[in-house]
Amino acid sequence: MPMIQLHDIPGFALGALAAGIKASGKTDLALILAEKAVAAAGVFTRNRITAAPVKLSRQRLGRSGRRARAVLVNSGNANACTGAEGMKNARATTGGLAEAVRAKAAEILVCSTGVIGVQLPVETMNAGIARLGAGEGRVDGAGFAAAIMTTDTVPKCAGLELDGLEGARLAGVCKGAGMIAPNMATMLAFLLTDADVAPKVLQTALQEAVRDTFNCVTVDGDTSTNDATLLLASGKTGPAIDTVGGAAYDRFLAGLNAVCLDLAEQLARDGEGATKLVRVRLAGARSRSDAEKAARTVAESPLVKTALFGGDPNWGRILMAVGRSGAQVREECLDVRLCGTPLFARGAPAIFDAGKLSAAMRAKEVNLDIDLGLGEARCAMLTCDYSYDYIRINAEYHT
Amino acid sequence: MPMIQLHDIPGFALGALAAGIKASGKTDLALILAEKAVAAAGVFTRNRITAAPVKLSRQRLGRSGRRARAVLVNSGNANACTGAEGMKNARATTGGLAEAVRAKAAEILVCSTGVIGVQLPVETMNAGIARLGAGEGRVDGAGFAAAIMTTDTVPKCAGLELDGLEGARLAGVCKGAGMIAPNMATMLAFLLTDADVAPKVLQTALQEAVRDTFNCVTVDGDTSTNDATLLLASGKTGPAIDTVGGAAYDRFLAGLNAVCLDLAEQLARDGEGATKLVRVRLAGARSRSDAEKAARTVAESPLVKTALFGGDPNWGRILMAVGRSGAQVREECLDVRLCGTPLFARGAPAIFDAGKLSAAMRAKEVNLDIDLGLGEARCAMLTCDYSYDYIRINAEYHT
Repeated sequence: MPMIQLHDIPGFALGALAAGIKASGKTDLALILAEKAVAAAGVFTRNRITAAPVKLSRQRLGRSGRRARAVLVNSGNANACTGAEGMKNARATTGGLAEAVRAKAAEILVCSTGVIGVQLPVETMNAGIARLGAGEGRVDGAGFAAAIMTTDTVPKCAGLELDGLEGARLAGVCKGAGMIAPNMATMLAFLLTDADVAPKVLQTALQEAVRDTFNCVTVDGDTSTNDATLLLASGKTGPAIDTVGGAAYDRFLAGLNAVCLDLAEQLARDGEGATKLVRVRLAGARSRSDAEKAARTVAESPLVKTALFGGDPNWGRILMAVGRSGAQVREECLDVRLCGTPLFARGAPAIFDAGKLSAAMRAKEVNLDIDLGLGEARCAMLTCDYSYDYIRINAEYHT
Repeated sequence: MPMIQLHDIPGFALGALAAGIKASGKTDLALILAEKAVAAAGVFTRNRITAAPVKLSRQRLGRSGRRARAVLVNSGNANACTGAEGMKNARATTGGLAEAVRAKAAEILVCSTGVIGVQLPVETMNAGIARLGAGEGRVDGAGFAAAIMTTDTVPKCAGLELDGLEGARLAGVCKGAGMIAPNMATMLAFLLTDADVAPKVLQTALQEAVRDTFNCVTVDGDTSTNDATLLLASGKTGPAIDTVGGAAYDRFLAGLNAVCLDLAEQLARDGEGATKLVRVRLAGARSRSDAEKAARTVAESPLVKTALFGGDPNWGRILMAVGRSGAQVREECLDVRLCGTPLFARGAPAIFDAGKLSAAMRAKEVNLDIDLGLGEARCAMLTCDYSYDYIRINAEYHT
């Protein structure tokens, strides 16, 4: 079965073109247009400093009863830390789109990614928006994914047919985690489905799915001002899903989780300077909060990440990170396995072949399993290693 | 006035020699011996996984009424994650010293730094301990500081005459923050004074001083399993300081703060791969906890640290870090200055000469001032930049 793509979802059209925001001349303006206002859900950055498009989209999703007609996305400019003028500009671009497609401005969501602290080129953008609104630049899912890239090295797409939902489908794209230019730390994801999910139910499902997928990705622990994940449901196919819980909801959530996890792994794999995807799988914690603290601290520890780059099975650094995480930990209950090889078992160093394990760590995917041995809670974080390229990418570019 | 050194403090003798723990043959065993049991205070790592010497010293300081006769320090082996055998070995080495100097084992404190997960070579060490106890290997403060180094590039010493305390003095040494070999993340500091400070008062003063000095140093956010700071007071000089508060206590604390801050800056300056010392000075926070959260998040942000290495006045990354810190923040109240140059003022980007500022950032010391504009609380963190050498040091060594 070929992968389901964004353009395979009934009820939506996609557009993208080079509007002139990026100096490179690459595509930088993208549009998702629904046939009519559809159920919409959004999850945004937890950073207390948020970009104008985050403020505006969050507000509109709240006020519009979680329905939206279109999503406008630009790359090349984050419209963050731009004050009142930034908000005015975000409104102006969505106003331009509302006029072009004869929609209410309140039903248009907007996302931006790129440089922080520079005002949007509104006139340039509105010329592009008018062309998109008139039907120019129709693209497929990969074309849409390419238009929202900044420093990503590959477009990121995922999708599937939703099991047991009468042929309804779900697909998504995302960008982020590569930062070759400065000030770009934006994770954006766009998900479309033709399942018939009520707005409030859609929001709950998205929050549930994001918790274990996108919110469990960490490249460097630096949360952006612009992160946003939007999910639109055209309702064209399958049974009506009007309540949280029940078989149809569970099937929808399972599919949503799978697509988000696929995209999240693509983000970590394309992290700045990354040579490998690393899954930190934490089990045996007293609580979910403890599990996440411990897994996140290990996944963000510079000493662990440089050891993973160097192929060094340095379990002392892993124990150090678990111990400093704030989670309840008892050394004598700890188990640590790397690439399946026990490094530390019930409080004692294990004997292993360091050369063989170091060779195994050269793989493109490495699993680090930690069992606190204290309870039932677990959490899996997705991360990558720290290489020389991380420093190069982030130190050698000058504003 | 020449700097006061550890060997200038009446009431103590110092020893160090190469006992054979380090393969390099460098000095690796050091001793501070007081003429009699003296007031002692200690502050230890907050990591929940602690090394055997940390457990033992913490226990003994609690039980001995905060008096100690000697401090035994070894480098080359952290005696961390070594289980029951590690505790037995820590006791055995302090037992060896107790015998050699005819002291109670309970009055001997012990610190270790070096590789994690390897048992101490107890026999080798006890031979060295017997020689030290017999008066061999007398050294000055710099010789002591050199014997406790692992991957430090320079010994770190500081000291002064305590103002207004009748000629009493305070001196200290510390090690840490360079990690050329693996598993070494230990910060150790030893402070001696001849001021006459009661044990409980000494402990309070040390805790106060550590809060704003050693606990405000961060190289990579990775808290070691072995961190320890010990302060011994021989009581040979000056007025008795029996209570917390009052003029004599305040004078003592001022001197203690100054010595600890001097040592803390030396640690950050010698951080792994560091090219500069960076002071993140956070003001205008609603609470001390908010001030520390914001300052620490900026000081530990990989994106901020790589920009500092690259000489990039990238204020978007600084705002991002402040925003994700969890501190109360309002974008429109924020001020950011780097090397004295305003970058962001009351919620708006400032106009500055980026080339000139980038040149100023090449200095050996860089100050980053952030004012949240919301309150009176403040915190200064000491850190360094992230360079290619950070990756080299931590990735290219294999266990």
